[in-house]
Amino acid sequence: MSTTDTAAGVAEAAAAGTTGAQDRRGVQALSPGATALLKTLDALFEGWGTDAGAASMIMQPLLPVESLARLDFYDNFPHQALLAAPLDLAKRDGTPGARPSSFAPEALEPAVLGLPSAACFAVYLYHEGRQVADGTTVTVLGRCFRREEYYEGLSRLLGFHMREIVALGSREFVQAHLRRFGDRITAFSEALGLPLRKEAATDPFYDRGGQRALLQKLSPVKHEFLAGDLAIASLNVHRNFFGERCDIRLEGTGEPVYTSCAAFGLERWLTVLHERYGSWEAAVEAVWAAGEAVREGDGDASRS
Amino acid sequence: MSTTDTAAGVAEAAAAGTTGAQDRRGVQALSPGATALLKTLDALFEGWGTDAGAASMIMQPLLPVESLARLDFYDNFPHQALLAAPLDLAKRDGTPGARPSSFAPEALEPAVLGLPSAACFAVYLYHEGRQVADGTTVTVLGRCFRREEYYEGLSRLLGFHMREIVALGSREFVQAHLRRFGDRITAFSEALGLPLRKEAATDPFYDRGGQRALLQKLSPVKHEFLAGDLAIASLNVHRNFFGERCDIRLEGTGEPVYTSCAAFGLERWLTVLHERYGSWEAAVEAVWAAGEAVREGDGDASRS
Repeated sequence: MSTTDTAAGVAEAAAAGTTGAQDRRGVQALSPGATALLKTLDALFEGWGTDAGAASMIMQPLLPVESLARLDFYDNFPHQALLAAPLDLAKRDGTPGARPSSFAPEALEPAVLGLPSAACFAVYLYHEGRQVADGTTVTVLGRCFRREEYYEGLSRLLGFHMREIVALGSREFVQAHLRRFGDRITAFSEALGLPLRKEAATDPFYDRGGQRALLQKLSPVKHEFLAGDLAIASLNVHRNFFGERCDIRLEGTGEPVYTSCAAFGLERWLTVLHERYGSWEAAVEAVWAAGEAVREGDGDASRS
Repeated sequence: MSTTDTAAGVAEAAAAGTTGAQDRRGVQALSPGATALLKTLDALFEGWGTDAGAASMIMQPLLPVESLARLDFYDNFPHQALLAAPLDLAKRDGTPGARPSSFAPEALEPAVLGLPSAACFAVYLYHEGRQVADGTTVTVLGRCFRREEYYEGLSRLLGFHMREIVALGSREFVQAHLRRFGDRITAFSEALGLPLRKEAATDPFYDRGGQRALLQKLSPVKHEFLAGDLAIASLNVHRNFFGERCDIRLEGTGEPVYTSCAAFGLERWLTVLHERYGSWEAAVEAVWAAGEAVREGDGDASRS
């Protein structure tokens, strides 16, 4: 583990991640070294998106409960859900200096906003009621929140960073989008000397037991890239689910758009790369080099 | 207002900010143009920090209620407070497809984590119980949350971005820190042709009525830079309040550190710069040019 101090005197050790201080609540600060690696990785993945024509956007940090409900979030992922609830001033124990360690539900007002569990939801909601051109892509970095049974270092967090590259358009386009970024992830992991396993996974983002669940068995809608047991990236097909629920229509046909996304769980990349390279600094170097190699590889491919 | 579409077909208009769609809930997506301006501004302000030796860090997105309570947050800003509460699966109305627009407090579990209202709290908590060298600086970008009576475009949001450059050390150092960044903000706004007013402001972050409140009247602890009526940056002196509450001690003396911070409300800068320059693209150009001018000015000063 790196214990390098920065020039500014900020200690690395306590929040270094994989073997550092763990917060049982699943939220954790990143040390300067870990921060540098996260930013390097994120800029690389964002660049993969913008090089492919994606618009880079910053989405809202909280989403309306009614919007998440429309996307079946509370039916499919109620166990993960976190709500943002204001303090009810009238009911609060106002004793100054009382120093609570929690607030009971009775001390809260109703929650109309939820913390997002994935970065792409806001992208579909942004396009709600609109027509989009085939080949529309958007890339976003989201702080996402998923309640888990337990938390572990940087590999299982309540709050984490997810970079996504999202495609909206025809069925053919959104499939080609995933092939493109699946190939890119494979090439990048090979350049890093980081063996990844690609596996089909299930995703409950559909009416369970309904027609979509049957389709999912016939044709997987989610593939994960795993380092050991840790899924660090995924490719997700949503068919026209979000197109229908958000009334996003394809220019020309007027039909609900198909969508897909490539997603990167950044703190998990940090865990895996720190383990692979032994320090944040070495991992940053390796990501730079592998990013360049993949870019050059692309150039070769386009010339051949 | 800019209505430029990007190559990727993502519409600018609906979330362009100052005159675009407004969300009465105070959360808003940034269009690609607004996103580019926010990233440009943030990289500039972050660079001001790192050029001065600051460690750039990413802090946790939620903070323990018990930590915020220790900083008197719930005594001083209860009206702003938002808590992150899990859904109580046992009490939830589980009817699939019910599509709630809010969750009643009774449907929530107790909240042990809160949404931060300022980016620097996590910096003090990170250093809790540690000794730090004089001259320690940290720069962070936080997504912050403040409940308001009403929300307005990008200038008054529930959820917004705050870039901070935080100083920890001796009283002299943290004062010099604010002089340095106060001068920098003034030079930058002059280079932008953006008239800013610097005004003393009050900050309730102290025992009201106590000794600190008296001190605040004698010597302001907060100065704001206002464009029109909108505070877009602030300089904040905390004396040794956070040093005491978080047990952060100065190397050598062992005394609680003094702290101060320069803070930038990024969406408010977006509002002001869009109004000043008429488009996101022109504003990005202007920020680049003014940033360069301020940097060259620094170089001249160091040579003279």
